[in-house]
Amino acid sequence: MSEIEKHTIIQINKADNVGIVAESNGLREGTMLKNGIVLKQDIPMGHKVALADIMPDDPVIKYGVIIGYAKISITKGEWVETSKIMLPSPPDLDSISLHSAKKHDSDPLEGYTFEGYRNRDGSVGTRNVLGISTSVQCVSGLAEHVARKIKHELLPKYPNVDDAVALNHTYGCGVAINAPAAIVPIRTIKNIAQNPNFGGEVLVIGLGCEKLRPERLVSDSNGESDIFYMQDERFQGFQEMVDGAMELAEAHLKKLNERKRETCPASELVVGMQCGGSDAFSGITANPAAGYAADLIVKAGGSVMFSEVTEVRDAVHLLVPRTNDPEVGKALIDSMKWYDEYLQQGQADRSANPTPGNVGGGLSNVVEKAMGSIAKSGTSTIVDVIGPGERIRKKGLTFAATPASDFICGTLQLAAGMNMHVFITGRGTPYGLSMVPVIKVGSNSKLSNRWYDLIDLDAGPIATGKKSIEEVGWELFHMMLDVASGKTQVASDRLGLHNDLVLFNPGPIT
Amino acid sequence: MSEIEKHTIIQINKADNVGIVAESNGLREGTMLKNGIVLKQDIPMGHKVALADIMPDDPVIKYGVIIGYAKISITKGEWVETSKIMLPSPPDLDSISLHSAKKHDSDPLEGYTFEGYRNRDGSVGTRNVLGISTSVQCVSGLAEHVARKIKHELLPKYPNVDDAVALNHTYGCGVAINAPAAIVPIRTIKNIAQNPNFGGEVLVIGLGCEKLRPERLVSDSNGESDIFYMQDERFQGFQEMVDGAMELAEAHLKKLNERKRETCPASELVVGMQCGGSDAFSGITANPAAGYAADLIVKAGGSVMFSEVTEVRDAVHLLVPRTNDPEVGKALIDSMKWYDEYLQQGQADRSANPTPGNVGGGLSNVVEKAMGSIAKSGTSTIVDVIGPGERIRKKGLTFAATPASDFICGTLQLAAGMNMHVFITGRGTPYGLSMVPVIKVGSNSKLSNRWYDLIDLDAGPIATGKKSIEEVGWELFHMMLDVASGKTQVASDRLGLHNDLVLFNPGPIT
Repeated sequence: MSEIEKHTIIQINKADNVGIVAESNGLREGTMLKNGIVLKQDIPMGHKVALADIMPDDPVIKYGVIIGYAKISITKGEWVETSKIMLPSPPDLDSISLHSAKKHDSDPLEGYTFEGYRNRDGSVGTRNVLGISTSVQCVSGLAEHVARKIKHELLPKYPNVDDAVALNHTYGCGVAINAPAAIVPIRTIKNIAQNPNFGGEVLVIGLGCEKLRPERLVSDSNGESDIFYMQDERFQGFQEMVDGAMELAEAHLKKLNERKRETCPASELVVGMQCGGSDAFSGITANPAAGYAADLIVKAGGSVMFSEVTEVRDAVHLLVPRTNDPEVGKALIDSMKWYDEYLQQGQADRSANPTPGNVGGGLSNVVEKAMGSIAKSGTSTIVDVIGPGERIRKKGLTFAATPASDFICGTLQLAAGMNMHVFITGRGTPYGLSMVPVIKVGSNSKLSNRWYDLIDLDAGPIATGKKSIEEVGWELFHMMLDVASGKTQVASDRLGLHNDLVLFNPGPIT
Repeated sequence: MSEIEKHTIIQINKADNVGIVAESNGLREGTMLKNGIVLKQDIPMGHKVALADIMPDDPVIKYGVIIGYAKISITKGEWVETSKIMLPSPPDLDSISLHSAKKHDSDPLEGYTFEGYRNRDGSVGTRNVLGISTSVQCVSGLAEHVARKIKHELLPKYPNVDDAVALNHTYGCGVAINAPAAIVPIRTIKNIAQNPNFGGEVLVIGLGCEKLRPERLVSDSNGESDIFYMQDERFQGFQEMVDGAMELAEAHLKKLNERKRETCPASELVVGMQCGGSDAFSGITANPAAGYAADLIVKAGGSVMFSEVTEVRDAVHLLVPRTNDPEVGKALIDSMKWYDEYLQQGQADRSANPTPGNVGGGLSNVVEKAMGSIAKSGTSTIVDVIGPGERIRKKGLTFAATPASDFICGTLQLAAGMNMHVFITGRGTPYGLSMVPVIKVGSNSKLSNRWYDLIDLDAGPIATGKKSIEEVGWELFHMMLDVASGKTQVASDRLGLHNDLVLFNPGPIT
């Protein structure tokens, strides 16, 4: 029995009546755990084992909270499978107290810096990219053509510019532009172009007859002279259009080429935190480590966003008390209400999350997923709530109310103004963006080792006790500073793997 | 006055109390028309002039139908501007008779052929393309990487294969996969891969943990062995994933390389008709000519689809009598009802169509736009109605109930199985697809001349009487056969301008 007795499981909270199998190959029936419990079944990695007998309708407790109720009797040592757990009701939004005990965040963290590109508006870029915004999908072919041509013909002349990126999307025409919800995709497109990595030097390619007027996409940093219309009558044929766009692009490249990296305090980081393809380890290893790093950024005076409404919904009663102002708490609750109604209108609810991959990775339902998901927000005070596609307004920790869809959340955090993206995965995703670096953190070493060139940081050693949450949190913090400075290239950039921009459009198509 | 007297305007129907200015620079105040009317204002090209005094609340008649009611008094010779017209109520869907007088379509058209690729399932391709389907946006970076690598490294070895195309989209995860409306994007993705131009040799790149199971995307022509999962544990790192995908791709390329063009009757054409960036000429020149060509295809035994629910809504009472079966008529009406409710749910209605470009081009409202839009359906019997993303089932004329959005309609017609796309524009769009050739028809010579290398066929001479609708209709018919045979390359393919696939997702994001 000596070998078998070595096996441990992870009990996250002392109140938990389930534990997590940490072994990468799972554990077999008959295995004896350190606490003397003998497994009644084979249990895969990340899945739950009953630490006590659980009667029908008894609560199943993990993270110290009720993640569901037993549908049938589950005896000690049995696999607490998804099919045995009933989803509890979500927290009642109207009974959450807005009273928030003002807590003092701990001592500030000083002396950390990175080499960034400071912009006229005070924001700081971590890359130097020419953004080619577009008003409508119709022009995507031209925008891609021009971006490719700029890379081949112009970038060699402007060595300080990292890249030229067409900001293509699927919106802009064939939409009910005056429907109330249309504001979401419209402000998203506009605000993406204001991302600090574009340095305020964006051009807009429009068609001319589209619903979304290109004039709505310009801002303080650019004007109508930065708009290029394909239907402009001065162009005879395609080549003249390309020449026109190249000329406009070159004017912006000249200005971008003057940007130089300079030492900036860590407080200029704007970090978008996200997780996707999560497993049971996400909430134990990588998300808590990311939360620790988020706290470090906040202590250093920087900005952190967390998002994913459907993954926060079941933990919102734990988050409202972390707000510093009843108005912020109310905004947080309102963002949940909006989403409840949105899902209901589409005849769906929060049980539509999780994914089959989450379940396969040991996450039985959205409550369990939520408890892991919010860990990446750390422990700081929540100072603001912004709507999908809105720009971040404050230093500190902000809840950006976006869908949980990886690529939509990323697009909206980009619009909010992140200059650094942290993405945690347990199942594995090649996710990347061409506008902002994405640090991918693996929640378990099995994935991180297999995907050695796709994952930037392995949080797996936390599960085996080889590293602490604090250690990996500091590693991630330092990695953010290095990546922000252009000293370290992330996996997705090295491999050239970049996702499309995907808008959140709750409004109708016509 | 002799020079001024030459000016004509176009009166489409004898009952019309408005005419259309055909001159490319518009007509000036004081110009005398052939019928003796003197213009009271400058009127731009494509816009309407009052041919009689129109009192407040009097009908404004064009195409012989009421396109609206005068808001104010409009005197003969005045510009009938958009602001002067009230939008009428849409046809009442519940009062349209389903009684359809069975009409006999005229004599069959025989002897026309093209050189196509005949598939095992009997369908015929017009191109020979390796399709790389994807289950989720997460994998788009890998799919693009693999498609590029295939083009550079493998296609030279398989000269009969025209192209390798990643079928990327924004769906697959972070969605309420069991919401009723989710069936629309799911069947669209599945059916796109069945387009005849892929010859049944599609591979599917999946991630592994996504909501949309890749197994749901395979069909009779392929099996689960055609699915590639990035999370497959046999892959150590990115290069092994790429090698795995390349190996799977090559197996399909070998089969595609055996495809040879053979003479096929014109009845094997499946034509998707669409218009976008329309102006007042679209409904007078290009759409009627396309309708004539559509009739020729139907007479030759082929299949034609027309679409765009919001542009058909106001003409549906004219279309139901063209159905050959009360069930088809009912399906047509039901597709309108579904869309009315969908728009209402998003607090929008049919007035969300037209676009600013339509209005600038002389189309005041969606009624006027609809009358022009349905002209491209010709005069044939409507034999079937299919939902968005469904496959076409019958020869003859089918209404494919898609949104009017150019890029969404095209994506859905692709899923329906078109092997030839006709796209009519008056304002101009570079629209193209990499899977199926798109013939772009210009509605006016001003555009067609300026965009000489972007427009494939100019229907403008119809407005000036230099060509008849029949003549341009036959030109388009012959061009379809040549393009389908690979003898003529369309502008968008020559310039490499291709739009993204854009799904219609009426269901919620999570």
